[in-house]
Amino acid sequence: PLFPVGILTVSDKCSQGLAQDTSGPALRTLLESRTNSVWQVTHTHVVPDEQHEISSTVQQWSAHCRLVVVSGGTGIAEGDVTVGALEPLFTKRLPSLAIAMVVGSLRITPKAALSQVTAGVVGRCVVVAVPGSKKGSVENLEQIVDVLPHAVDIAGAGRSTRQLHEG
Amino acid sequence: PLFPVGILTVSDKCSQGLAQDTSGPALRTLLESRTNSVWQVTHTHVVPDEQHEISSTVQQWSAHCRLVVVSGGTGIAEGDVTVGALEPLFTKRLPSLAIAMVVGSLRITPKAALSQVTAGVVGRCVVVAVPGSKKGSVENLEQIVDVLPHAVDIAGAGRSTRQLHEG
Amino acid sequence: PLFPVGILTVSDKCSQGLAQDTSGPALRTLLESRTNSVWQVTHTHVVPDEQHEISSTVQQWSAHCRLVVVSGGTGIAEGDVTVGALEPLFTKRLPSLAIAMVVGSLRITPKAALSQVTAGVVGRCVVVAVPGSKKGSVENLEQIVDVLPHAVDIAGAGRSTRQLHEG
Ligand code: NA
Repeated sequence: PLFPVGILTVSDKCSQGLAQDTSGPALRTLLESRTNSVWQVTHTHVVPDEQHEISSTVQQWSAHCRLVVVSGGTGIAEGDVTVGALEPLFTKRLPSLAIAMVVGSLRITPKAALSQVTAGVVGRCVVVAVPGSKKGSVENLEQIVDVLPHAVDIAGAGRSTRQLHEG
Repeated sequence: PLFPVGILTVSDKCSQGLAQDTSGPALRTLLESRTNSVWQVTHTHVVPDEQHEISSTVQQWSAHCRLVVVSGGTGIAEGDVTVGALEPLFTKRLPSLAIAMVVGSLRITPKAALSQVTAGVVGRCVVVAVPGSKKGSVENLEQIVDVLPHAVDIAGAGRSTRQLHEG
Repeated sequence: PLFPVGILTVSDKCSQGLAQDTSGPALRTLLESRTNSVWQVTHTHVVPDEQHEISSTVQQWSAHCRLVVVSGGTGIAEGDVTVGALEPLFTKRLPSLAIAMVVGSLRITPKAALSQVTAGVVGRCVVVAVPGSKKGSVENLEQIVDVLPHAVDIAGAGRSTRQLHEG
């Protein structure tokens, strides 16, 4: 059985039909096209850069999805509100996952220093926020895609990591 | 038109005239001497390691400067209060900018693990805190100096990064 | 005179005698066996994955030890509570020390992205949290072990880092 995944695109223009969502489909391909992929994208949506719309969508999806990738609204402009929308939802922050994205992306472009990527757990769901550009979203998720199945396996299992390893 | 910059040196000894501020002038040179520099240092000051003096100066400068570099008070001693002075001012934290400074500086010296660099936005002004030593301050700012013009362009523009890219 | 060190192992199974603590002894060896080691492990204990037991032990030890290494409970499962137990105790956070552990460990294994290592100061004591596995605990502490004597020298000295360097 595959893990259900939500991909949420945050973009005023895409939500108004004034631009096409390119990061959402690219992230879907990255997850579903992997050899022995464990992922099935079950939820996709486009919302404007509005904190409440982002947080309420992720909160709802977290009951159904084991992974939610949020693309967009992670820049440093005043209108970039994704991080502020997500972090209050996190039952556990996953700062090392964010560091892995930043450090890996910095090897590709110094502009990675200007993104506000973040990651955390909401209930049993792992939530990751990546930039809104097709290139930036894929480059960031690629840094951690190999460990995401393990992350989802563990998150919300209710016991400590050591107990899980000890069987 | 150049971006106005403030450079704030945090040092008890320098503020008492018992030592000379070497990081402030070095940071000024780093910013202003770049090819096609977009920076003009308009504000410089030396304050003691006092939380209130740091935060009130940065708060005031943020109305006039588009970039403020704070040097000193970022170590791990009890008297290092810069981070505690700055973070409550941030309207947006820029953790990736701090990670870029740490990761780059770690390639130069393992002692970079002992600094508390930080970065954030105060209104329309990007604020970056670097170590107080001449060497450490320059090494840290060099890690991000290439992306700072873009950071200042975007910060406080009031729209999301994607909107800015979409024109 | 050597710096007194506490090593706290967090593990439900080890605390019940159902598994053997391997990370604690490995960390002790790493610290005490170094050439010109400045460390002497004076406190060791095993506690279950209970937030209160972790925080009260570290709080008590911080009055006697200059370094406390906590091993375990740093994963992303719901039962991993070490970070939540420690961070409220920190009189100063040391995020760069955590970044150095993550970045160095990521070079060894991408699973380092799934740990929640952290570091901070409690009074005059430096506290570092590393994973619970023998391999993960040692790999993380090795990333920062060279700078820990300097960290302990400075932490809690009551003056700013610059003052210490200026003599
Ligand atoms: Na455990």
